[in-house]
Amino acid sequence: MTILVLNCGSSSIKYQVIKMSCANEYSLLVKGQIERIGLSDGLLVHKPVDKPKFELTKSIPDHTSGINLILEALVDPDHGVLNSITELSAVGHRVAHGGEYFKDSAVVNKTVKQQIEACFELAPLHNPANLKGILSMENILPNTPQVAVFDTSFHQTIPAKNFMYALPYKYYEEYRVRRYGFHGTSHKYVAQVGCKMTGIDFDHSKIITCHIGNGASITAILDGKSYDTSMGFTPVDGLIMGTRCGSTDPGALIYIAEKEGLNLDRLSGMINKESGLYGITGVSSDMRDIHAAANRGDERAKLALAMFVARIKKFIGQYAALMGGADLIVFTGGVGENDYLVREWVCEGMEYMGILFDKEANDGVRARDIIISTPDSKVKVAAVTTNEELVIASDTFRLLKKRSE
Amino acid sequence: MTILVLNCGSSSIKYQVIKMSCANEYSLLVKGQIERIGLSDGLLVHKPVDKPKFELTKSIPDHTSGINLILEALVDPDHGVLNSITELSAVGHRVAHGGEYFKDSAVVNKTVKQQIEACFELAPLHNPANLKGILSMENILPNTPQVAVFDTSFHQTIPAKNFMYALPYKYYEEYRVRRYGFHGTSHKYVAQVGCKMTGIDFDHSKIITCHIGNGASITAILDGKSYDTSMGFTPVDGLIMGTRCGSTDPGALIYIAEKEGLNLDRLSGMINKESGLYGITGVSSDMRDIHAAANRGDERAKLALAMFVARIKKFIGQYAALMGGADLIVFTGGVGENDYLVREWVCEGMEYMGILFDKEANDGVRARDIIISTPDSKVKVAAVTTNEELVIASDTFRLLKKRSE
Repeated sequence: MTILVLNCGSSSIKYQVIKMSCANEYSLLVKGQIERIGLSDGLLVHKPVDKPKFELTKSIPDHTSGINLILEALVDPDHGVLNSITELSAVGHRVAHGGEYFKDSAVVNKTVKQQIEACFELAPLHNPANLKGILSMENILPNTPQVAVFDTSFHQTIPAKNFMYALPYKYYEEYRVRRYGFHGTSHKYVAQVGCKMTGIDFDHSKIITCHIGNGASITAILDGKSYDTSMGFTPVDGLIMGTRCGSTDPGALIYIAEKEGLNLDRLSGMINKESGLYGITGVSSDMRDIHAAANRGDERAKLALAMFVARIKKFIGQYAALMGGADLIVFTGGVGENDYLVREWVCEGMEYMGILFDKEANDGVRARDIIISTPDSKVKVAAVTTNEELVIASDTFRLLKKRSE
Repeated sequence: MTILVLNCGSSSIKYQVIKMSCANEYSLLVKGQIERIGLSDGLLVHKPVDKPKFELTKSIPDHTSGINLILEALVDPDHGVLNSITELSAVGHRVAHGGEYFKDSAVVNKTVKQQIEACFELAPLHNPANLKGILSMENILPNTPQVAVFDTSFHQTIPAKNFMYALPYKYYEEYRVRRYGFHGTSHKYVAQVGCKMTGIDFDHSKIITCHIGNGASITAILDGKSYDTSMGFTPVDGLIMGTRCGSTDPGALIYIAEKEGLNLDRLSGMINKESGLYGITGVSSDMRDIHAAANRGDERAKLALAMFVARIKKFIGQYAALMGGADLIVFTGGVGENDYLVREWVCEGMEYMGILFDKEANDGVRARDIIISTPDSKVKVAAVTTNEELVIASDTFRLLKKRSE
């Protein structure tokens, strides 16, 4: 089954073609990206695994023309990876928000499209673009099945005691304000890979997955099911991120908004785009820059690193408390996969809960699946490179195979 | 040294007279309360330890007249506890907010009064009333020394990595927006009592104190110093309280404010007065009512209990992670001292961090200092009745003794 995986943003489309022969066997044929949709200098970057990279700059007025460009590139005699577009068995879409509708990925039909639209308000930047991608694809290849894979659905197993806020109950009833969580495909994937690496039974275990990139979230996984997660109703909650503040006293935000005369929109912009590592340091939202600044002696960069690490520790500690301990901790995401210093600092002094960190194994390791706890550590620790596209392809494979049976 | 302890609110004054012969020896002479200052039916309730209770209803136009009424009651031939007001050696005041000015209690002078006033904006409901009490007392007894004891000063040892928010740095520079924490006197007191009960060295230990009442906060105390605490810039952050939401995704609050057309003031009212246990249950902010409702099968009351307990567990877990474990956990406050079920539920399943809870010792115990971990528990757990007035008297004694030496 040859699957096109699409991640449609408001002005960009990321894609991969993955060939799956069974649930565990796959090969990547190409990955690529469309940028600047709607502008005259739209860009296609197409990177086949076995052929040289291809780039094209041209006007890409909308998502349909962007997808057409991708399909052309896929069958191009020089840099294509398919003989004919009919070789595509299915399209798997990343969809940001499934609200309370989707507890699993879903084969796209009329109801699914309506429910994705019903979640527009919950993810106003992402869901409309995701649906655009689905509709465009439907126009171009009306007979190719499509599957929607949601960032939120893995977290739909979180129990009410962990997903409810202590706000007036009516706001849940009227507006469905609750913790949804994001990065679901990544948390599930790296937990499963981590289990395979360490011989832990995914369905009977306590796992804490730390997806730490520019956006970042931590998830408690109890017996294979998401039990709590640090992002909430929106992705601004929880960990300190590149430009997002994470958990913050709401009273402090109201005080600042009053002092500065910020309306709700500007307050939202402040906590989403001007805060986090960037807000503390005033220098950068990128951990590499912040390490460099800290090494030069920049006090605010040092503070940002200490805060960033302390916040991750806090979430590991609280999820251990919620689950009654942990069997496995997994680091992933841009920072989690590459920043071995952050991994070390987070795991330092955690012997009380059974973590024996293997500093030597961890030192210098980037972008590699590796166990970084000592053999006698009660709690295993691993770094795992995430692969959300593979999860989307696998779910597409699983659902369509089921349908065809 | 006979000390009058005053806790002046905007329309009430609580008082105690405590006689201290040395730092560890004291006796309570009377406790009482003035209510409804500014109304025609003001009330004095005066409860001497060795005499019958005295109550008086009369117009109490302002704090000065309220304090005069208290002083009259203290020397009254029938229900008084002093022969003459000159027997009062000093007055100790509870002051809500000391900002970054006060790292300890302070003998009141001109600068101290200015600094309490400089913190009005940080505690607009409390600091003005606290200062009113100080000024009234100064007018009435100009030669009696006064000491200010701050709810925040114990927390001034919290390091920047734990007190800073991941917001634009300028908001700390311009408005001193940071975590301050509250209930400082209570956290310090019960930690010290808990240490004495368990033989732990306060100055070389990891302690987590849970002050859980209608307002609630948890503090991590490392080597005798506050290291982190759950209340933040305001008291709305952290735990779920009677009517306060505690930690909540700021993005969710902005969404609700937009939907409901709430301005900042009403948003603040919602998270402070309509949320917490009351918001979830729609029934009550009082844990006793909520237990009763849950026992009748009320699903939202059951949910509120589960959320309340999970949130406390989360903070214990995160502070253990920050400090590298814990030696002692102390419960105090109206709920912490009396609600043995909450204590049991919080400590359930925490064996991973070394807690062995003694269910039998805990069962049914209210308002009594008691160890509720088993003898072989690595982490000791205790319930301790708090006594903030005693801390205020002790600090007053300590500072004035030092001055007179």
